[in-house]
Amino acid sequence: MEKYISSLQNPLIKQFALLQEKSRERKKTGLFTIEGQREITLAIKGNCIIKTVLFSSEIIAEEDLYVLKDLSDTETDFVEISTEVYDKLAYRNSTEGILAIAKSNEHSLENFTLSSKNPLILVAEATEKPGNIGALLRTADAANLDGVIIADMKTDIYNPNIIRSSVGCVFTNNIATGSTSEIIAFLKESNITMYCAALQSSTPYYTQDYKEGCAIVVGTEATGLSKEWLQHSNQNIIIPMQGEIDSMNVSVAAGILIFEAKRQRGFN
Amino acid sequence: MEKYISSLQNPLIKQFALLQEKSRERKKTGLFTIEGQREITLAIKGNCIIKTVLFSSEIIAEEDLYVLKDLSDTETDFVEISTEVYDKLAYRNSTEGILAIAKSNEHSLENFTLSSKNPLILVAEATEKPGNIGALLRTADAANLDGVIIADMKTDIYNPNIIRSSVGCVFTNNIATGSTSEIIAFLKESNITMYCAALQSSTPYYTQDYKEGCAIVVGTEATGLSKEWLQHSNQNIIIPMQGEIDSMNVSVAAGILIFEAKRQRGFN
Repeated sequence: MEKYISSLQNPLIKQFALLQEKSRERKKTGLFTIEGQREITLAIKGNCIIKTVLFSSEIIAEEDLYVLKDLSDTETDFVEISTEVYDKLAYRNSTEGILAIAKSNEHSLENFTLSSKNPLILVAEATEKPGNIGALLRTADAANLDGVIIADMKTDIYNPNIIRSSVGCVFTNNIATGSTSEIIAFLKESNITMYCAALQSSTPYYTQDYKEGCAIVVGTEATGLSKEWLQHSNQNIIIPMQGEIDSMNVSVAAGILIFEAKRQRGFN
Repeated sequence: MEKYISSLQNPLIKQFALLQEKSRERKKTGLFTIEGQREITLAIKGNCIIKTVLFSSEIIAEEDLYVLKDLSDTETDFVEISTEVYDKLAYRNSTEGILAIAKSNEHSLENFTLSSKNPLILVAEATEKPGNIGALLRTADAANLDGVIIADMKTDIYNPNIIRSSVGCVFTNNIATGSTSEIIAFLKESNITMYCAALQSSTPYYTQDYKEGCAIVVGTEATGLSKEWLQHSNQNIIIPMQGEIDSMNVSVAAGILIFEAKRQRGFN
């Protein structure tokens, strides 16, 4: 029997709002929220367990709901909500009519595996803006990178702004998070060459060979990479800047570096 | 004698607010607004005539104001405003304390000149988000492109969101705007090869030679380039996508294409 919720005071609705807003709540419960048909579908494909689907039958098309029910685990709870409740919970001005609560996957380095012998991975340190992390994840998906590792995250990977700006690529990438020290140790153990985007003692990015297992490491736009990365870097690389302003968006810079590596690898 | 304004009802303050908000007002008067020390400095370097500088002496450092007075035309009017007026007008939560009204430069194709014999230019069609235009202009500046042409703009180039997201690169680039038909005619007359980022009949971007005069043409993320471009394109190019999601941020894609051209040209 399906449930129907029309009250904003309902405990499930209150929990949803709390999970949207608070990283602490997501960490405590191991749950997070997803908005949108496409994102929920990608989450299921990415082996996320969907605990609850909240839908407004006035908005979502019936067949879309069927497709999602087909895809879902039998344990997923489908709960109908009023349009008023939906409008209150939904971030986007979209008319998709569907939200979900899902179980967080583990993203520790211990459980992080690289299937390729010569992996190409992206490491991003302390990227503070969720929009930048989302953009990096989109590029990483397009390049089909073997992995993305995020160092010293200020929020959690299931921040709704990251999910949204990644257009669901948070579910399609092989992601780990950890401290800079842990990640450097992991890369060294795995024989992965670290190419750090940094000015000091650097060489133009296109002079390097990225065909062996390697990581492209980027920092923040404001302060770049921390000292620890520079101490352990195998080679610092730069994108030559020839304009008036010495500044490039971090996701654009990462895209240029990643696709130079892809080009050298013949997109294999 | 310097003026001091503390009233939001002052005609100059009202005009400033109107110029910030209305593209129509900017077009009608040939004026626009700038916020921030760096942006105003870049505008002066980019040969914009600054009509009025509005500053809050409680916020801006005295030496910064002197530097700007030195750089400015003798006809620039310096007007002190109260902090309350500044806070009302400033978009950013910054503490720079400086705003300006400047004269728009002309960006028609008739006055657009390319100094290089083998120019590398970027054409962006109907890019609807000011933030995307700003990001493209940042990348164009970093690559020191010979020009940027924007087709069928939905707003004007002096939209405050474009100035802000370009971090002032709207003043450092050689920019023209026009209709798609005008731009195609211009490129043909100038013997500039059009490489259009589009799926149809396309070849991977890295197989092409960008050393002769050429334009990289990108459309919107949602709908791509219009038919007219595809009819006149010399060669369609794609960035191979190997992930789950067939979508890349337009400024990341443009960055990858532009810097492949730069790489082939040896960054000369």
